[in-house]
Amino acid sequence: MRTMSRKIYLEMNPPTEEDPRPDTQRIRDALGEPVRFSLSVLRQLAVVLPDAAWKITATLGYDGAGWEVIRLEKGNTTAEHYAVAVDLGSTTVCMRLVNMQSGSVVASESRFNRQIAYGEDILNRVFYCRNHPEHLEEVRQATLESFREVMDALTDRTGIPAEAFSAMVVSGNTTMIHLFLGLDPFAVFASPYAPHACDFDFYSGSSLGLDIPGYVYCVPCRANYLGGDILSGLIATGLAEREEISVFLDIGTNGELVVGNRHFLLAGAGAAGPALEGGSVSTGMRAKTGAVSKVTMEDGKLRLHVIGDTKPEGLCGSGIVDLLSVLFLGGILDRMGKFRDGAWDYVEQDGQRGVCYGEGLVLWQSDVDAFLRTKAAANTMVDYILEYAGIPMDQVDRFYVSGAFGTHLDKESAVSIGLYPDLPRDRIVNAGNSSLEGAQKLLMNMDRISDIQRYLSAMEYIQFGAVTDFVSRMTAALAIPHTDLERYPSVKGKITS
Amino acid sequence: MRTMSRKIYLEMNPPTEEDPRPDTQRIRDALGEPVRFSLSVLRQLAVVLPDAAWKITATLGYDGAGWEVIRLEKGNTTAEHYAVAVDLGSTTVCMRLVNMQSGSVVASESRFNRQIAYGEDILNRVFYCRNHPEHLEEVRQATLESFREVMDALTDRTGIPAEAFSAMVVSGNTTMIHLFLGLDPFAVFASPYAPHACDFDFYSGSSLGLDIPGYVYCVPCRANYLGGDILSGLIATGLAEREEISVFLDIGTNGELVVGNRHFLLAGAGAAGPALEGGSVSTGMRAKTGAVSKVTMEDGKLRLHVIGDTKPEGLCGSGIVDLLSVLFLGGILDRMGKFRDGAWDYVEQDGQRGVCYGEGLVLWQSDVDAFLRTKAAANTMVDYILEYAGIPMDQVDRFYVSGAFGTHLDKESAVSIGLYPDLPRDRIVNAGNSSLEGAQKLLMNMDRISDIQRYLSAMEYIQFGAVTDFVSRMTAALAIPHTDLERYPSVKGKITS
Repeated sequence: MRTMSRKIYLEMNPPTEEDPRPDTQRIRDALGEPVRFSLSVLRQLAVVLPDAAWKITATLGYDGAGWEVIRLEKGNTTAEHYAVAVDLGSTTVCMRLVNMQSGSVVASESRFNRQIAYGEDILNRVFYCRNHPEHLEEVRQATLESFREVMDALTDRTGIPAEAFSAMVVSGNTTMIHLFLGLDPFAVFASPYAPHACDFDFYSGSSLGLDIPGYVYCVPCRANYLGGDILSGLIATGLAEREEISVFLDIGTNGELVVGNRHFLLAGAGAAGPALEGGSVSTGMRAKTGAVSKVTMEDGKLRLHVIGDTKPEGLCGSGIVDLLSVLFLGGILDRMGKFRDGAWDYVEQDGQRGVCYGEGLVLWQSDVDAFLRTKAAANTMVDYILEYAGIPMDQVDRFYVSGAFGTHLDKESAVSIGLYPDLPRDRIVNAGNSSLEGAQKLLMNMDRISDIQRYLSAMEYIQFGAVTDFVSRMTAALAIPHTDLERYPSVKGKITS
Repeated sequence: MRTMSRKIYLEMNPPTEEDPRPDTQRIRDALGEPVRFSLSVLRQLAVVLPDAAWKITATLGYDGAGWEVIRLEKGNTTAEHYAVAVDLGSTTVCMRLVNMQSGSVVASESRFNRQIAYGEDILNRVFYCRNHPEHLEEVRQATLESFREVMDALTDRTGIPAEAFSAMVVSGNTTMIHLFLGLDPFAVFASPYAPHACDFDFYSGSSLGLDIPGYVYCVPCRANYLGGDILSGLIATGLAEREEISVFLDIGTNGELVVGNRHFLLAGAGAAGPALEGGSVSTGMRAKTGAVSKVTMEDGKLRLHVIGDTKPEGLCGSGIVDLLSVLFLGGILDRMGKFRDGAWDYVEQDGQRGVCYGEGLVLWQSDVDAFLRTKAAANTMVDYILEYAGIPMDQVDRFYVSGAFGTHLDKESAVSIGLYPDLPRDRIVNAGNSSLEGAQKLLMNMDRISDIQRYLSAMEYIQFGAVTDFVSRMTAALAIPHTDLERYPSVKGKITS
């Protein structure tokens, strides 16, 4: 496997009057291959080589066309070879420090994306930047600041300094990569939805403002709403290499979806609404300390699991799905998602009912309605794309759920409310942060870049926003688990009333 | 001919929902070739493309491996295509702004190299930088400041801004390129004379600290004392492409020499002493206002030509050679370079004679001795290398003299004192600033880079410092024109006494 950076130990003879080859030529000859030299390495030669008695380890970074010597160290340090995989999410920047020799993860760290200061909603950030290059630069700097924070955390955790980060792969959606590189992302959201760039060259860390010696590769995007995070997810799951058909679903602010196998790839994307991240539920919150992440019903009472075991402060996505599921299966919510008369000791306000699930915390009817619209959107995307491809649900061998949201969601609850299809549970696979996982795989095997290029060429893309009967299909999917109950045999059996 | 930058006019259709290709892909498709995009171009796409209604001119710069879009302009600007050739001399930085469409020179400018503040003698600059990275950076910045001065002068002269300088070729000796790139040049001067780098990658202007969009290529060096200025001279003269044998001589602080044709190349270098630039002559000075640049004798009186037609302040190189020649041919200097008794109305001081050639300006016996050592060194280099190659002088078809010094030297005077060999005068060719000329040729035809690589591989290199009988040969060459007068038949006939 061709890793995206290499470390090679070289034992050379010092120059003599008989052999006065320049340092760079001596290193090239020892490597046995043509390489470029970064300016900072050129400037170190005079000191490092004599100090190391011409026994050095050269780190080579791939610049998109060839190899560049990006670092020199005294002695043999080939065992200490590291690079960084990044998932640049609109909410969170997650990184893994990867041991490039073994492929193992040395440490993982994440921080909230400092772009949030310019808007929780990504559209606010986009409008802030629009036609204001100085604002765009502010947001880019905020992004870099988050990168630095996470990199510092990796260093604090491991003692491995940023100068040892010999390559970086960044996976993110089209907007995130635009902002990271300093491109105005407005075009991503406005007709005709032509991004400024969807595939990216290798840029040196320093040119991007990152204090690492190596090059940065951003995973290419397919379209405005179908970003590198999804392509990276295909690498992570291997979906596009298998004979069996899989579905890959990433639901966050947007819903992104890929159906396919080694022979075909069909992708779609559309707005799913921020409900799944707790956004449109009045007491929704991110999955952090104080968030209710799990809900069960025992003896007619709600039992909550709160992150950090503290007093509950609100519901994160998995808590909402669990709560809706127990309320539905417990007969409190009917199939249309309405609170049944007399089924609970409701609180009421402004003419609507609500279920108090914690001190001062109420799930209102309007919250349920909003969330069901999101789940209907996700359900309809899967439904539509499978129908478009002519694939019955039972031919789906694996149903990957990706993203931080999917990681914490209870499969059973998600099927019960009709967010996931009613597949045998072992076919529903939590792909975790597949964007990050794919970035890590790319670091370890550069040849997979050509796989991505192949996927991009093969992939057909559907903008759900342009599908005319999408809204009527969504309406049918608003019911719990779905208007067509035959699609949910396992749920049908559980419905108590 | 493949120029080192290209400008291409593209008429594209704006994106539509049916054709939402990203801007970068749209440009690649229109170009019909794969290209990289500089970050600054990526960041301009959102503004430039709509403003230009997708009718743009792309400037492509060569980065050493492929083409990068380095600039976008509205409309068709292919007729305005410029690049810069640079001769980075230890004394002077000379540039030509080249029209890349026609190959013609739009303007030339030069300024003294600000490195001079760190020592007139290049060795002082080298010692200042040695083991002091912060001093090295100071000297690098001084070099860049000179670049900026000359570039500003080109802009002032032509109205063409630096952002239109789409490529740059820099030709200089090994030390100058080390300092330009920020490499400690001490190794160039100290045994075992192994430079840190002799061939150079293409570096972006911005990475070097120059505010130009394009890439910078430094002409490779052959060895410590045989720099890119000489290789560039070979490109300029075409010496290594012809069947006939030529000699190429560049005499400044050092003497560099190439003998050869399309079948062989033999090069040598050694210290020539700064005498030729006026350095070791007590009233010597650079060729600027006040310098005596030409001397004749009429009716037993010296007649001076002074640069700027002012009062004489000293002798520049061509003035020294002329003065020595008229004193020798006039019988004042004998063949051993000593002032003959009673041949002139000498001034005397500290037991040595001198010829007063202007008010308060004296050429002392010690000045003559110093200069003759330099001319002997230059003469011996040519003599030695031809003998080494087994080539009699009469087989030399062209004798190129390069450098600012050679440009102003009177051929007849230079032969008379034995600085040049006694060849038919039409074989002695003033190659002018061949370092700059070669840089210009490389801009216009990138394929000549591979010619340079071929020359470098073919070239045998002699360090004159390592030639054991060099000093005894030099002693024979101290005489005017030479101890062996048969080598100078044309001078023999002129000797009056």
